[in-house]
Amino acid sequence: MDPDAVAKAFVEHYYSTFDANRAGLANLYQEGSMLTFEGQKIQGSQNIVAKLTSLPFQQCKHNITTVDCQPSGSGGMLVFVSGTLQLAGEQHALKFSQMFHLMPTPQGSFYVLNDIFRLNYA
Amino acid sequence: MDPDAVAKAFVEHYYSTFDANRAGLANLYQEGSMLTFEGQKIQGSQNIVAKLTSLPFQQCKHNITTVDCQPSGSGGMLVFVSGTLQLAGEQHALKFSQMFHLMPTPQGSFYVLNDIFRLNYA
Repeated sequence: MDPDAVAKAFVEHYYSTFDANRAGLANLYQEGSMLTFEGQKIQGSQNIVAKLTSLPFQQCKHNITTVDCQPSGSGGMLVFVSGTLQLAGEQHALKFSQMFHLMPTPQGSFYVLNDIFRLNYA
Repeated sequence: MDPDAVAKAFVEHYYSTFDANRAGLANLYQEGSMLTFEGQKIQGSQNIVAKLTSLPFQQCKHNITTVDCQPSGSGGMLVFVSGTLQLAGEQHALKFSQMFHLMPTPQGSFYVLNDIFRLNYA
């Protein structure tokens, strides 16, 4: 397994799902998963997806600038992303940074244990 | 232990040490520690500090905008920082994002297992 390839595949899957159908992100999180979104702490797959689907915009498009990854121990992986978020009807894209802590599942896949998102205001 | 207080104290200690005496960061890392600095991967306390002390500027000042933290399992903690980096003689500060994965030591302190740094170009 090439960690960089796994990270890149995860990032592509995550943001394409986010942009097409946010509710489809539910199976990437579990009950113990945590999201900190612009400082707000949310726990559990259901609550996390409720937060993401309630964000006050309909259509968006993430563009990824950088993806870094490192093994975190216990078979986990840290993925650090920077990029821009274009909201429908807005002239300027928003810059963001986000980190994911992926942990292995018994099925040989990964789920998101930790997720921290911040906009980088210019 | 209040994780947010630990994260804040770590961040203050890390950046004040970085700005005053980068070589003093050595004891925050161990042999298994990893740094990804602007995409360059470096492993081990000695190599990491060699990289940080060789950065092509003498004086700098980090200003912290946000600090987010989450428990990462196994007693570890993820700390996600955004802020600006002012280099001596430069008119404009550079925006950056950085994440640390802190793991407990037998002595009851923490060391940095994972460190990922990125400048956020405007």
